[in-house]
Amino acid sequence: MTSTPKPSAKTPDTKIYERRESGVRSYSRSMPRQFNKAQGVWMHGNDGSRYLDFLSGCSSLNYGHNHPALKQALMDYIAADGVTHALDLYTDAKAEFLATLEDVILKPRGLDYRAMFTGPTGTNAVEAAIKLARKVTGRETVIAFTNGFHGMTLGALACTGNAGKRGGAGVPLSHVSHEPYDGYYGPDVDTADLLEQRLEDPSSGLDAPAAFLVETVQGEGGLNAASPEWLRKIAALAKKHGALMIVDDIQAGCGRTGGFFSFEDMGFKPDIVTLAKSLSGMGLPFALTLFRPELDVWSPGEHNGTFRGNNHAFVTATAALKEFWADPKFAEDVARRGRILEERLDKMAKRHGLSTRGRGMMRGINVETGEIADKITGTCFDEGLIIETSGAHGEIVKVLAPLVIDDETFNAGLDILEEAIAETIAPVDASDTTGAKADSKLGLAA
Amino acid sequence: MTSTPKPSAKTPDTKIYERRESGVRSYSRSMPRQFNKAQGVWMHGNDGSRYLDFLSGCSSLNYGHNHPALKQALMDYIAADGVTHALDLYTDAKAEFLATLEDVILKPRGLDYRAMFTGPTGTNAVEAAIKLARKVTGRETVIAFTNGFHGMTLGALACTGNAGKRGGAGVPLSHVSHEPYDGYYGPDVDTADLLEQRLEDPSSGLDAPAAFLVETVQGEGGLNAASPEWLRKIAALAKKHGALMIVDDIQAGCGRTGGFFSFEDMGFKPDIVTLAKSLSGMGLPFALTLFRPELDVWSPGEHNGTFRGNNHAFVTATAALKEFWADPKFAEDVARRGRILEERLDKMAKRHGLSTRGRGMMRGINVETGEIADKITGTCFDEGLIIETSGAHGEIVKVLAPLVIDDETFNAGLDILEEAIAETIAPVDASDTTGAKADSKLGLAA
Amino acid sequence: MTSTPKPSAKTPDTKIYERRESGVRSYSRSMPRQFNKAQGVWMHGNDGSRYLDFLSGCSSLNYGHNHPALKQALMDYIAADGVTHALDLYTDAKAEFLATLEDVILKPRGLDYRAMFTGPTGTNAVEAAIKLARKVTGRETVIAFTNGFHGMTLGALACTGNAGKRGGAGVPLSHVSHEPYDGYYGPDVDTADLLEQRLEDPSSGLDAPAAFLVETVQGEGGLNAASPEWLRKIAALAKKHGALMIVDDIQAGCGRTGGFFSFEDMGFKPDIVTLAKSLSGMGLPFALTLFRPELDVWSPGEHNGTFRGNNHAFVTATAALKEFWADPKFAEDVARRGRILEERLDKMAKRHGLSTRGRGMMRGINVETGEIADKITGTCFDEGLIIETSGAHGEIVKVLAPLVIDDETFNAGLDILEEAIAETIAPVDASDTTGAKADSKLGLAA
Amino acid sequence: MTSTPKPSAKTPDTKIYERRESGVRSYSRSMPRQFNKAQGVWMHGNDGSRYLDFLSGCSSLNYGHNHPALKQALMDYIAADGVTHALDLYTDAKAEFLATLEDVILKPRGLDYRAMFTGPTGTNAVEAAIKLARKVTGRETVIAFTNGFHGMTLGALACTGNAGKRGGAGVPLSHVSHEPYDGYYGPDVDTADLLEQRLEDPSSGLDAPAAFLVETVQGEGGLNAASPEWLRKIAALAKKHGALMIVDDIQAGCGRTGGFFSFEDMGFKPDIVTLAKSLSGMGLPFALTLFRPELDVWSPGEHNGTFRGNNHAFVTATAALKEFWADPKFAEDVARRGRILEERLDKMAKRHGLSTRGRGMMRGINVETGEIADKITGTCFDEGLIIETSGAHGEIVKVLAPLVIDDETFNAGLDILEEAIAETIAPVDASDTTGAKADSKLGLAA
Repeated sequence: MTSTPKPSAKTPDTKIYERRESGVRSYSRSMPRQFNKAQGVWMHGNDGSRYLDFLSGCSSLNYGHNHPALKQALMDYIAADGVTHALDLYTDAKAEFLATLEDVILKPRGLDYRAMFTGPTGTNAVEAAIKLARKVTGRETVIAFTNGFHGMTLGALACTGNAGKRGGAGVPLSHVSHEPYDGYYGPDVDTADLLEQRLEDPSSGLDAPAAFLVETVQGEGGLNAASPEWLRKIAALAKKHGALMIVDDIQAGCGRTGGFFSFEDMGFKPDIVTLAKSLSGMGLPFALTLFRPELDVWSPGEHNGTFRGNNHAFVTATAALKEFWADPKFAEDVARRGRILEERLDKMAKRHGLSTRGRGMMRGINVETGEIADKITGTCFDEGLIIETSGAHGEIVKVLAPLVIDDETFNAGLDILEEAIAETIAPVDASDTTGAKADSKLGLAA
Repeated sequence: MTSTPKPSAKTPDTKIYERRESGVRSYSRSMPRQFNKAQGVWMHGNDGSRYLDFLSGCSSLNYGHNHPALKQALMDYIAADGVTHALDLYTDAKAEFLATLEDVILKPRGLDYRAMFTGPTGTNAVEAAIKLARKVTGRETVIAFTNGFHGMTLGALACTGNAGKRGGAGVPLSHVSHEPYDGYYGPDVDTADLLEQRLEDPSSGLDAPAAFLVETVQGEGGLNAASPEWLRKIAALAKKHGALMIVDDIQAGCGRTGGFFSFEDMGFKPDIVTLAKSLSGMGLPFALTLFRPELDVWSPGEHNGTFRGNNHAFVTATAALKEFWADPKFAEDVARRGRILEERLDKMAKRHGLSTRGRGMMRGINVETGEIADKITGTCFDEGLIIETSGAHGEIVKVLAPLVIDDETFNAGLDILEEAIAETIAPVDASDTTGAKADSKLGLAA
Repeated sequence: MTSTPKPSAKTPDTKIYERRESGVRSYSRSMPRQFNKAQGVWMHGNDGSRYLDFLSGCSSLNYGHNHPALKQALMDYIAADGVTHALDLYTDAKAEFLATLEDVILKPRGLDYRAMFTGPTGTNAVEAAIKLARKVTGRETVIAFTNGFHGMTLGALACTGNAGKRGGAGVPLSHVSHEPYDGYYGPDVDTADLLEQRLEDPSSGLDAPAAFLVETVQGEGGLNAASPEWLRKIAALAKKHGALMIVDDIQAGCGRTGGFFSFEDMGFKPDIVTLAKSLSGMGLPFALTLFRPELDVWSPGEHNGTFRGNNHAFVTATAALKEFWADPKFAEDVARRGRILEERLDKMAKRHGLSTRGRGMMRGINVETGEIADKITGTCFDEGLIIETSGAHGEIVKVLAPLVIDDETFNAGLDILEEAIAETIAPVDASDTTGAKADSKLGLAA
Repeated sequence: MTSTPKPSAKTPDTKIYERRESGVRSYSRSMPRQFNKAQGVWMHGNDGSRYLDFLSGCSSLNYGHNHPALKQALMDYIAADGVTHALDLYTDAKAEFLATLEDVILKPRGLDYRAMFTGPTGTNAVEAAIKLARKVTGRETVIAFTNGFHGMTLGALACTGNAGKRGGAGVPLSHVSHEPYDGYYGPDVDTADLLEQRLEDPSSGLDAPAAFLVETVQGEGGLNAASPEWLRKIAALAKKHGALMIVDDIQAGCGRTGGFFSFEDMGFKPDIVTLAKSLSGMGLPFALTLFRPELDVWSPGEHNGTFRGNNHAFVTATAALKEFWADPKFAEDVARRGRILEERLDKMAKRHGLSTRGRGMMRGINVETGEIADKITGTCFDEGLIIETSGAHGEIVKVLAPLVIDDETFNAGLDILEEAIAETIAPVDASDTTGAKADSKLGLAA
């Protein structure tokens, strides 16, 4: 890889950003490149560089960038003056999306949900979910979990664990109790049992909950994956205590962990599910709150919003459901790739005495500190691989590759990661020199 | 008009919506048509009907549907595999948007703002604005105003006056004081003076505010337009009391009231401005929080979100700024159309002893009850005109026509409204029969 | 008065306070004397000084200090080993208090209230009142008023207007809306009408209230006295909007404004009344929340507290009710003294171009700034008169003389006040020299 | 005991209570007797009955009822017209109390605290403590513990675990996180370690705390006694994380657990301590918040209240400190009686396969359900013993005997308890008949 030209030697001109974009911007700081196009698993810099994308818009681009089928559907729609914006009026695009969702996703899974088109951001879907749970139960408290991440608007932010994000609120964040996630106190403590004890104790100070809000795999929180047993216990606890079980599937859903929903085949059905990120298939803003029909107690317009029916996203989402979910082939491929990822990460972890996290195509490796993780991802970026960190301390290097990546490219990207780790962390067995300075598998542009 | 075929005799098949869409849907209830395309000022039903759009996506479609220049720019971008989703990474589309915003909007108006790309919904832009104000001032209380409307997520909802929307929160809405808007207690009471008295009284119970959050014209609240004098007083009060002045320009901005910002030429500069709705120009989800550079105290990523850089919207927004705001012609046209609207509404109001509201191309007529207003808008819809109501009781029939409408079509649409009012409300002078049963100016499809 | 020895030339030894008492102490700062006994209208310093008490424990000593009848009843009770503390068990002392309250107070006034013995502080009575109102109505918002003062615990503090007190909370104070009190915007604005408009507007942002919490005269807030008309409007508004009317009669009740309750003969009956301060008659901690029997929806022990049945206070309160309220003579005397007070204050105000405030024996004079008021009360203290200020800026010199004061002593105290004002503020008519340097009427100890 | 006449066959006339006292009353329901006097360890019904008091006003009467020394001091004070009520002015009574507190309590224990006289109820002392902690730290969150009980006003209630009490609030209780108390998850889980993990995890959702509010023995929560090790860990955690350690010693202090403070000799010094209940020594309302001088950041009057200097209580509290705490004899006696109590309860527990709880003279026996506990205490009451329950389910029969009880009477009371348990619960060894139907040791009046 040493002989391959680095993706870009030049720093882009960032004056316009410095002058006019708020300092709240973040990813562009560690990946200072200006991109102009993107196709499949690749992002292209306007300096001719190209990057393999193992971030996938934080799981918003599960099918890769600008997938031809989705792109074509959208262009056809625009060309025909298809409705772009129609508030929540009926449109052909909406009807077709709902019918496809029903046929391709809900029916085959035996799920009877209604769809609420919230504002097209994950945080809005979460806000709608917890509002609904509070309205249905007449209770205020939402039980969220340590390291959970649910959004930045005030209701969702109260459910988010991250202190830095919470600190931005400027007011105390209330009506939420943060309980230990599965495995939080190590493998020997069943945190669902701890929670049960407090719920059943009328003097515990834990008010009767409206909802349990849980990610099956915590994307931002460090790729912690809850076990099916624990999730079933949580679902049972919710039911027993008159609370609703909300699965926030914004990052783990849409195939990232294998099935369309991350909780498939786990033996429970959430009362409410939130979706966003890869739902539109092409990275367009789109979010959905699904719930059992009996919970649909909203008054018309009680929760509304200007962009809650994004017709372009209806079109691409419909195309994505048809393209990827109409037969089991895609899920099987994802499962296979997930096993490749698991094996390769396990190997890297073993070599360096580290541990892995996650499930399906949503996995990472715990390199112990944020500084080490940043060094690794920085090295990767220099070698043409976009990859990021997560976790409370940013200590998890996370692989969120497009689900459609071909095996060869996938392995080439993982080679870069392996090498970057090897450059950064000494192997447990000091005589091991594998992985150091392998030739790059990526044909990187100058 | 009686001889003209009604836009649609058939009720669309709504089974899929009843089965799969949440009952929270609202506009589709009073306008039960399924639309498939839209161009300029027209929306087309899939039954061949067509409707003149005086709702404009609640001011999200100020330049009409699918404007050719914007549409072409977007199709070119997609065809070239332009980046669709890139989190907050630098892209050509973003750089060009920022540069155009600077050149076309900020510089000519002497405004030195930084742009924060929040999640692409108005409510998110408002949440970011009030978070920032709380962070900068170290205070919690936001002063919002009666009949204000700012969004549905918990922080913005607390600033919203509407009881029905507030009731959906499920938790008490805190940290906001709702004060009387300009004119709330009639023309003889200066509500800014009332507010000043309470702010200066250390025993009033009104805590020191972080921000004043104000719309210059209240879109959802009934098209109440604040006077420049009152707004200047509020701006001065904010400054005097160490609070930030936030103008929520989501509905009134982007030309709806004449200028790009609704507060231009009023003699004050807000500390923070929120934009969304027509910002993308084509109805794509896009929102922006602008603020003075000195207020940019965010840590990187302190407020983030998956879709906060919607590149498709960057493209269309850039095209819109160039198309409409690079020379003064457009604003002049809007001003002229606003005068037409004013005159025609005043005439209708005078005939029926009613009053009008609003400013620029954001005006309405107060027909006194929601029932009467619904009857009028229902009649309009039957005659091929999409028009809606606003106000605390839904008693204001509001005209939010596309700003680009040609005068003839505009007048034809206003004829329909005039006629519908005349059919519903007796004239003050009973001998007046003008406006009843004029021939339709709209060539409506069968 | 100049020839009379000042009450005390010596500063007391305050080292023990400086060493061991929190700096939160306040009255002792402006009245640096150490008292050892008190009888009737007089307080005695341990240096032989004596002071006429026009503060009366902020209206906690309406019957003067250690009234012989009350003192004897208490000593007899203690000597007989009467129950001192019994939680909320039945005691003879409690039964007799309840029976006396019923016979002497409730029945003659046609009031059918139940008594809740809260913790023996006013703030606790207020907390119980607002809890009950929230429980009965299922709503959260309490409407309190500008300059209202209701206590220091978190629920009552949220209802208190004073910014300094509120600032001590350390958390935002929520669930309360502070509305303008009677006369807040001057004599031409009926603030009840302003409130009504907001309550009837579903978009005003004012949530449906659980209760209106009002003082008929604002003791700490500056002796603002609401008119009966305004109070009736507030009572009617409460009823119309499904809220409970709570009169906080802690300072204005127990005869301070004439009747036992401050709202007698005003044409409305509060749903809930709070009492404390002079209720025990002798200054012992005692508080009561009274409410209509239909509102008594408490579960046993739902609001409790260790000292909620203070049997010593039952004994003295019973004695006080029998001594002062069993026949109309006392109320008549208070009314007469109230007129004396009114006339004398009006005269002082007139001379100096000032205004007066208040009702009955709860009146004050507005000297415009806290600095002037402090100077006046300081001068009074030097002349042997204990008197304090109130109001948002401490600008009201308030006279809270014992209700049992004889006319001669009362006038002598008012002479001191008159003189102190005359020394501090120039008369409107400069040739007026009345009141300056009159001989003291108080025989003050060396 | 069967031959002894029951303390009272008659039900007292409760009509006045039913008519005029709120249904919130509680103890009088299970102990329907009307008391008229009380001396030492005995309470006397007005029907000639007498009861041994193992409730002691929930630990407010540690020195028994109307102790002669305290009673005499109070009568002397009243006879001499000692100041009864003086707001927070200096009085001889206050000075002597402060000096005695310093000499007898603080100095010998090496504690340098300042005293804040809050409103004379425990809940007010707690409100002041948490306000101060929030003010000092600039943070909002208070960490309280499962089964903690701290009072009924809104700030203290938020810190209380009991769901029934919390339900009375009528608003959500915020700004408090309830964490597991020592032993909450059984002997094998160190809950301080669990708490530490969450505090050190920046994504746990647990905001940085202003204070830890802890009882060393949870009086209402079921007599759970924290170990010194755990308390030291909590104190260390508080220090490490910039929070203040508040010991709520309202029930466990004043000798109940042995020393004057419950935390003596445990190797840590709280930052803030709250006292009330037995502080006055005679059951008079009195409360105190003690804190390190450096924390005394209050502005004058920032937290105030009418009855915050209860001079009668100063007198009796001073007498109590001198009588009981000036030499070690009393504490030694209490320690000895605590051992008697421990042994006897252990024996009872062993016989019936039950467990005991508590420390010093603050102990109880867990009889597993509230129904059984109520049956036992009911039987005791019938036999002339006042005793109550505590715990989340009321399942703990708690012994709060006066600390001054002589051994013979103490054992006689415990005999009644032992017998009542034996009548209600089968022994583990069925052949055991000990304790059944022993003769009463109490000479009970007819």
